[in-house]
Amino acid sequence: MEALGAEPPAALNEIYRSFIDDDALHAALLDERPAVVSFHFGLPREDRIRTLRERGITLLATATSLAEARVVAASGVHAVVAQGWEAGGHRGAFDPDAPDDRMGMLALTRLLVRELDIPVIAAGGIMDGAGIAAALRLGAAAAQLGTAFIACDESQADQGYRAALASEAAHHTTMVRAISGRPARCLANRFTAFAADVPARDVPAYPIAYDLGKALHAAARAREEFGFGAQWAGQGAPLARPMSAARLVETLAAELDAAR
Amino acid sequence: MEALGAEPPAALNEIYRSFIDDDALHAALLDERPAVVSFHFGLPREDRIRTLRERGITLLATATSLAEARVVAASGVHAVVAQGWEAGGHRGAFDPDAPDDRMGMLALTRLLVRELDIPVIAAGGIMDGAGIAAALRLGAAAAQLGTAFIACDESQADQGYRAALASEAAHHTTMVRAISGRPARCLANRFTAFAADVPARDVPAYPIAYDLGKALHAAARAREEFGFGAQWAGQGAPLARPMSAARLVETLAAELDAAR
Repeated sequence: MEALGAEPPAALNEIYRSFIDDDALHAALLDERPAVVSFHFGLPREDRIRTLRERGITLLATATSLAEARVVAASGVHAVVAQGWEAGGHRGAFDPDAPDDRMGMLALTRLLVRELDIPVIAAGGIMDGAGIAAALRLGAAAAQLGTAFIACDESQADQGYRAALASEAAHHTTMVRAISGRPARCLANRFTAFAADVPARDVPAYPIAYDLGKALHAAARAREEFGFGAQWAGQGAPLARPMSAARLVETLAAELDAAR
Repeated sequence: MEALGAEPPAALNEIYRSFIDDDALHAALLDERPAVVSFHFGLPREDRIRTLRERGITLLATATSLAEARVVAASGVHAVVAQGWEAGGHRGAFDPDAPDDRMGMLALTRLLVRELDIPVIAAGGIMDGAGIAAALRLGAAAAQLGTAFIACDESQADQGYRAALASEAAHHTTMVRAISGRPARCLANRFTAFAADVPARDVPAYPIAYDLGKALHAAARAREEFGFGAQWAGQGAPLARPMSAARLVETLAAELDAAR
């Protein structure tokens, strides 16, 4: 990592830009024609957005600020995901090296609902029907939940990740860059403790650092040390409930009905 | 500031501890008997809480984490203010030198509502009736608004502060320690830009740094430079509305009725 750290992250981020505008990926989407495609870390080229729209695909894109949300609204994407700073996993900021106002879900959603003409989907910290009801009261058209599903039977979370989520560790999340090369919220563990001392300029860009981090985790796990996993989780982690995904969706619907 | 910075902040924080347990202040509260007393930065001694309760005063206290909220609930205080990381002004953490999970209002409120038996008052980023309605949906008994009132006619905010709040500057707030000696959220300005380069260990404790900061602001203002004010504001700052406080309260009530 030290050798790669000599490269400026901004240049390495071009690797990611080429990924989001990858020809084969775009062709696969047109071919597969999923009901929804959601962009994270920015937008593909304008002509690509137009082509996907013309294919009848509903397009979403993440924004972490009003400035990004305005770019999304002008791009032809159908709806914007307002990702609050409390959200787990990768922060969808367009440029990970730009200053970040770290807007929470509540203020960001209210602001986007007021300023934009496209639907806003609230994300960050929402774990149950009461949280969804709150998001709708803010004027969001929908809510997006991620961490709520990590404890589900179907998720790929390993034994160490599930154990951490069900323990006191769920109360401590942190925004970390060194695991993947881009800021992301994760349960505090041995990896994030190590990462806290690594300056941003020494972290190679996404997904280079991520590949190295995965290799580290695999090596540690082989020795039954689970503290180096990328245990992505939002601040609502202590409210995660282990059950099947279908049962969780039913539960959320029932809770939402009760909270309305 | 450099000379004072040689002192460890933890020791200087004793100055604040002695303030919250000040004999004259406690006597004045018993004498004045306000309807409500709300504690910030921790709690006074247990016997003081008991005396104030016996005097018929409703007691509130701020918590920024579940751990602090449990201490509040066990203290005899009537209700806890769940202060999200998006909130403007001073962060009410008991110990400004302890690690901070920076919980947003949404996740913190949900967690406190689930874990505690006393009423939870949600604070942070709430600017209008829709925000209050969202807080109530999360199970909060009430909402606390601060930044929403800064633009009111009656507030002590000076011309520079009001101009910043009504401008593009309202979109950028930051958590800063150097202005007062404790972490607090403020509009980004020349003071916060300077403070970004000051290590926490070099900042004397609250309220020593605060007194120096006020002197700096007064000197700058005398030269018509408003960028050194402590322009406290939460992340909802762009949603502030200038009007009388009475009119704002009426507006919030009408919006809340409409949003329910």
